[in-house]
Amino acid sequence: MLTTYQFQTAARILAGENTLLQLTDHLAAIHPHIQRALILTQPALQEMGYTSSIEQQLTDKGILFDVCTTILPEPTEQNIEETFAAFSEHKYELLIGLGGGSVLDATKILSVLMTNDQRIKDILGTNLVEHPGIPTVLIPTTSGTGSEVTPNAIVTIPDQELKIGIVSSYLLPQLVILDPVLTLGLPKPITAATGMDAFTHSIESFISNKANYFSDMFALESIRLISASIIEAYENGASISAREKMLLGSTYGGMALTAAGTAAVHALAYPLGGKYGIPHGVANSMLLPHVMEFNMDHCVDRLTLVAEPMGIETAGLSPEDAALRVIERIREWTAKLNIPQDLKEYGVQEKDLKALAQSASEVTRLLNNNPKVLSLEDMEQIYRKLLDV
Amino acid sequence: MLTTYQFQTAARILAGENTLLQLTDHLAAIHPHIQRALILTQPALQEMGYTSSIEQQLTDKGILFDVCTTILPEPTEQNIEETFAAFSEHKYELLIGLGGGSVLDATKILSVLMTNDQRIKDILGTNLVEHPGIPTVLIPTTSGTGSEVTPNAIVTIPDQELKIGIVSSYLLPQLVILDPVLTLGLPKPITAATGMDAFTHSIESFISNKANYFSDMFALESIRLISASIIEAYENGASISAREKMLLGSTYGGMALTAAGTAAVHALAYPLGGKYGIPHGVANSMLLPHVMEFNMDHCVDRLTLVAEPMGIETAGLSPEDAALRVIERIREWTAKLNIPQDLKEYGVQEKDLKALAQSASEVTRLLNNNPKVLSLEDMEQIYRKLLDV
Repeated sequence: MLTTYQFQTAARILAGENTLLQLTDHLAAIHPHIQRALILTQPALQEMGYTSSIEQQLTDKGILFDVCTTILPEPTEQNIEETFAAFSEHKYELLIGLGGGSVLDATKILSVLMTNDQRIKDILGTNLVEHPGIPTVLIPTTSGTGSEVTPNAIVTIPDQELKIGIVSSYLLPQLVILDPVLTLGLPKPITAATGMDAFTHSIESFISNKANYFSDMFALESIRLISASIIEAYENGASISAREKMLLGSTYGGMALTAAGTAAVHALAYPLGGKYGIPHGVANSMLLPHVMEFNMDHCVDRLTLVAEPMGIETAGLSPEDAALRVIERIREWTAKLNIPQDLKEYGVQEKDLKALAQSASEVTRLLNNNPKVLSLEDMEQIYRKLLDV
Repeated sequence: MLTTYQFQTAARILAGENTLLQLTDHLAAIHPHIQRALILTQPALQEMGYTSSIEQQLTDKGILFDVCTTILPEPTEQNIEETFAAFSEHKYELLIGLGGGSVLDATKILSVLMTNDQRIKDILGTNLVEHPGIPTVLIPTTSGTGSEVTPNAIVTIPDQELKIGIVSSYLLPQLVILDPVLTLGLPKPITAATGMDAFTHSIESFISNKANYFSDMFALESIRLISASIIEAYENGASISAREKMLLGSTYGGMALTAAGTAAVHALAYPLGGKYGIPHGVANSMLLPHVMEFNMDHCVDRLTLVAEPMGIETAGLSPEDAALRVIERIREWTAKLNIPQDLKEYGVQEKDLKALAQSASEVTRLLNNNPKVLSLEDMEQIYRKLLDV
């Protein structure tokens, strides 16, 4: 474990059923006189009326607002830059992001683009943003990304067929609202993929070479909450209690990864997103059991500690057997949740694996966190398991 | 448990052995051009050289600074106002508080006095501070208060023979440094009383009527860390690993109480501090087992959940017996740690109990969090147990 470690998160987190209705009660602490706000969301969420409560609250407070629905899933550099150009004419004092990881990441990036003389290409990497951005409120509608509490945002760069991270404290929001009501309508495949994404954040943070006291607490509590609710949230999406546990588990996953970083699963997932457009949660979920199996001999002790919060009875088991049960349980979930298993469905072929492995090998920021070193051949081998299904 | 709940904490927490040496590396994120800082500490800490590393780092960065050592233990309104008057002539961009709860609380209060046209009497209570204060760095040298991560500060008001809380988000610091090296030299009685104070924060937050998902996570992890280390930190003060666990446990205790609030132990402790000058940690430690015994029939289920992180074997025990073991373990600690047991040593007499109970009954902000209602007679009865020892 690291001997020096850090924690930082959103300035304030408000959680619980129907807390979205309290949004404007908390704005005074962010800015005394907000005149104009920008709401960023997905077209489908706006159509389903998810923004109407926000719009009503802003109207009641006399705050002008615009609504932006141009952010695409897994947004590219160009998509975010064009959105910036379209909305840079007004002076906003607040950006409100309501949606999944793509909307939240884009909201964070737009907030710093609006206050810095920097473009996206200037800030790709760690700590390159020069000044704080416009204050943001982030409201997740999926339980997966954890983006609402991380200083990270991911951009797809088509030229490089890769997704690249922007990391800066200035991406952290002033307010997060965790309202499980907003996740009740999540379709099953999204509940499954985003839920497994959140679980991946936590288990990768827990076995990360940078694991520490802070990340361990959040990771284990996230694993406990998700393990207790992921199947129920999938099978009975209307369960507010399962949805609440998933949402908290996902936010704690974001806190864990902020403190310790993710590892090889995420490194191998990025080229699948960048090159084949596989949604981030799906890519992570597909890879998770295979990478854990590969890692196992280098993190048996840590995987063993994950068994108890996953609800796995370990009495009488050797550490190896307990760790194997953890991987087995992940496989059971993957099956029950109908997570896609076959890269061929996304157009990946055997001849593409070398290039995929090459791209993944360049994500050294995350690979350095992995408890076991991966050769190019190891990575190809892991991808191949998702072809031979 | 509450269905709507909040979390907020310091903007950034840096933790681990010798992290004090990294102080100035983190200042740029707080303010781009700090020209003058004020260091607040206790005379004894300055004499022992605890501030020299800070002074050296500031000098190396060309930052002018003053050192203030006028804050007294359990500071009064007058003491803080006089300190403010003495140091209000310079324009500081940063206050650095290094010390126990008294210094940290005073640093937080001074930071908002310096930017607001308000005096202490104007801000006693909740959310009365009008504007953000000067940015602060808080560096605890005891493992007890948790003040470094709470929006609370306590002031002794001699006229009212009571300690009163100021609660405001603006009291939260921009940076916390948790360096266990700074706690290695803590004398045994302080290790004991402050450690039990931290434990009290966590157990009271866990049984609080306002307990929630956030506070529970921090409370249980704090209880786990403190239970694993309090006796070792007392008996072998040089153990960096025990000191680190205590320091994290204390910070998590602060996070738990921020999310859920403390309860009757703290309410009954305040008049003991305000009227008889009993240090906060000692007062809490004395009261803890007696108040828990009183509360027990209203929080058996919650106390039972505390047993496992305290390392108590509960297999085969009824909930009542598990809860009793928790209280028993607290009593064992109190004995091993030589916590004072006798209010007579502090000048309290039988005839004073009525007035003490009356004062405690006025701390409704905390009494409302207690799982069991206390009558004036109940409170007198609890105080009496600390006379008849």
